[in-house]
Amino acid sequence: MFHDPPRLPRGFRTASRNCGLKPSGKDLAIFVTEVDAVAAAVFTRNHFPGAPVILGRETIRGGRLRAIVVNSRVSNVATGETGLANARRMAAAAAAALGTSPDRVLVSSTGVIGVPLPIEKIERGLVGIAEDLVDDPLVGAEGIMTTDTHPKALSMGVGDVTITWVAKCSGMIEPNMATMLSYIMTDAVIDATELDRLLREVVDVSFNMLSIDTDTSTSDTCVILANGRAGTVDRDAFRKALRTGCLRMTEMLARDGEGATKLLRVTVRGAKTPPEARRIAKSLVNSPLVKTMAHGADPNVGRLLMAVGKCFECTIRQDATDAWINGQKVVHHGERTTFDETAVRAALATDTTDILVSLGVGDAEATAFGCDLSAGYISENAAYYSS
Amino acid sequence: MFHDPPRLPRGFRTASRNCGLKPSGKDLAIFVTEVDAVAAAVFTRNHFPGAPVILGRETIRGGRLRAIVVNSRVSNVATGETGLANARRMAAAAAAALGTSPDRVLVSSTGVIGVPLPIEKIERGLVGIAEDLVDDPLVGAEGIMTTDTHPKALSMGVGDVTITWVAKCSGMIEPNMATMLSYIMTDAVIDATELDRLLREVVDVSFNMLSIDTDTSTSDTCVILANGRAGTVDRDAFRKALRTGCLRMTEMLARDGEGATKLLRVTVRGAKTPPEARRIAKSLVNSPLVKTMAHGADPNVGRLLMAVGKCFECTIRQDATDAWINGQKVVHHGERTTFDETAVRAALATDTTDILVSLGVGDAEATAFGCDLSAGYISENAAYYSS
Repeated sequence: MFHDPPRLPRGFRTASRNCGLKPSGKDLAIFVTEVDAVAAAVFTRNHFPGAPVILGRETIRGGRLRAIVVNSRVSNVATGETGLANARRMAAAAAAALGTSPDRVLVSSTGVIGVPLPIEKIERGLVGIAEDLVDDPLVGAEGIMTTDTHPKALSMGVGDVTITWVAKCSGMIEPNMATMLSYIMTDAVIDATELDRLLREVVDVSFNMLSIDTDTSTSDTCVILANGRAGTVDRDAFRKALRTGCLRMTEMLARDGEGATKLLRVTVRGAKTPPEARRIAKSLVNSPLVKTMAHGADPNVGRLLMAVGKCFECTIRQDATDAWINGQKVVHHGERTTFDETAVRAALATDTTDILVSLGVGDAEATAFGCDLSAGYISENAAYYSS
Repeated sequence: MFHDPPRLPRGFRTASRNCGLKPSGKDLAIFVTEVDAVAAAVFTRNHFPGAPVILGRETIRGGRLRAIVVNSRVSNVATGETGLANARRMAAAAAAALGTSPDRVLVSSTGVIGVPLPIEKIERGLVGIAEDLVDDPLVGAEGIMTTDTHPKALSMGVGDVTITWVAKCSGMIEPNMATMLSYIMTDAVIDATELDRLLREVVDVSFNMLSIDTDTSTSDTCVILANGRAGTVDRDAFRKALRTGCLRMTEMLARDGEGATKLLRVTVRGAKTPPEARRIAKSLVNSPLVKTMAHGADPNVGRLLMAVGKCFECTIRQDATDAWINGQKVVHHGERTTFDETAVRAALATDTTDILVSLGVGDAEATAFGCDLSAGYISENAAYYSS
């Protein structure tokens, strides 16, 4: 269903370069459509949004984009008026290099907070970048990485139309409105209102249900561009494909969380309301004790009940609560079952821990995505470059 | 101000034993008053309270206690009707050993969840335990330890009256109504209503502001006993002493959090409302990125803004937000200052990280207590005994 290797939709190209922000490796990327695309975006809800997010909210109001320009290593957050001016200079430099106007360019920056953006390096890096444009989404994906261990891109066909996802993630990830940086491109014809509605709908069940470490970034951005080059598409098939790809990308991001060795996927069923289902699924996926249980592959199932039970404001009935780990029933009516411990240990030792909790108090369901918690997370974040 | 070494109030004694739950070390403790004490208690808000908490809520309704009996290693949680029957048997066995009635005995259990309580071992362990009673609170404190690295007790004089705190903590700690197990004993004369009110008031600013890992235990219990043996006490002085000791014990528990190498203390000032001050202080103290910053002693101050800013529902003004680390100003009006990095690194390398955030939008203030996040937390919890 997904293309292998991933490709870009008709009329989209990308490039990435090292402009001197990182000692080596790509640190600057552009994604370009040959004609203006209809665009929609969602951004972080953090009260300290970065300058690119502040500018991005203004840019997206136009509903049309020609390019996205992204740098890694420095996030341009907590940088005040100078930061905002630098974000505008970055849009202008990209527009000049691509022959468009700055209000058609969405800017993103990711990396350390509170450090001035080296805007001259970025401006120099953008000169002549149009000559580097290629069809391979992984080239652009490489330019937006921070602590990611590999570039992330996916693509899928829906009739004549292609949808491509490029994203990055790692730590400081519990998106709320979007994942850290996630770009979706399609050559379908879709009107702006519909695109915006679709984006919010799919983000809600995918990127917004991802949590690596409960820490909501100041830079989260998810943008979708539709340039219409491949014509119209069946609405339902497109919606379904968009959702499938966003979920797949969410899992890909979770698996590559800082220090992660496995995907942790938690489904809560039978909740009283959808918000309660989401709240409890997030409580489990964020619990340090559930995460270390997944890491250590030890079936300490009491931790599942603890993480459900600490959602004080939710409706929970002990004697209606059941739970499964990778298909093995470990809790029945609020009590630990006499499960086959060897089998559960073996299941926990795989690269995916699936937890299912049935609350038995309603019909609502939600799934949250995360990863285990390992010593790798500590070492990456106790020594992360800050200045 | 605190006694060194700590001692018990008049008429209180304690004992601890190994009854075979742990391979070695104390795993059973009692705290006894020679006459019935007025008592008040607060318990976990987790929806899956352990059997001792269910029984404890019933027992405390009487408002009178003669003893507390505690075992470590097995928490008697998620154990159903048998668990509740075992908690009652434990109260009965302690009452028989001490010559009182079961409804005067508060039971606590701490340790792994979902495992049957080895009640016969506990019953045998309680036989003749009255002969072991001593005056040293650390003897009882030793019997209630799980992953704690040392027993914890404090005492203080207020006029003729003594207040003594004995507590344990470690992981699965974000109490809500109480810390994991915290026993406060005093020989003051206080009536039941006043004692209950005082307990709730001090717990709210101390144990309820402690978070080791956001995971609210199913066993949290905080009890206070006043046996009246030393007569009356100045109300305000007692209240002040109770608060001081609870705060000190909270810090002691935070410092001994699983894997902790330092105390993380976060004060938020100038918040719009007290709940917002508490919410933001907790957000900072619980943020894995702030905790690893404290651990790594790297002044990545953008993480402070991120952790403030992710409290979506709170009133926050970027240009009014200032922050300090151990007295050094690192954020001014939402922007990183050009602080002395060597000095901040040196401050972060001490055994206490003090973060102060001034929001400038109101008059409310709160302080939260926690610890850094280290590889030690991961190794303890990825391999914790579960069955």
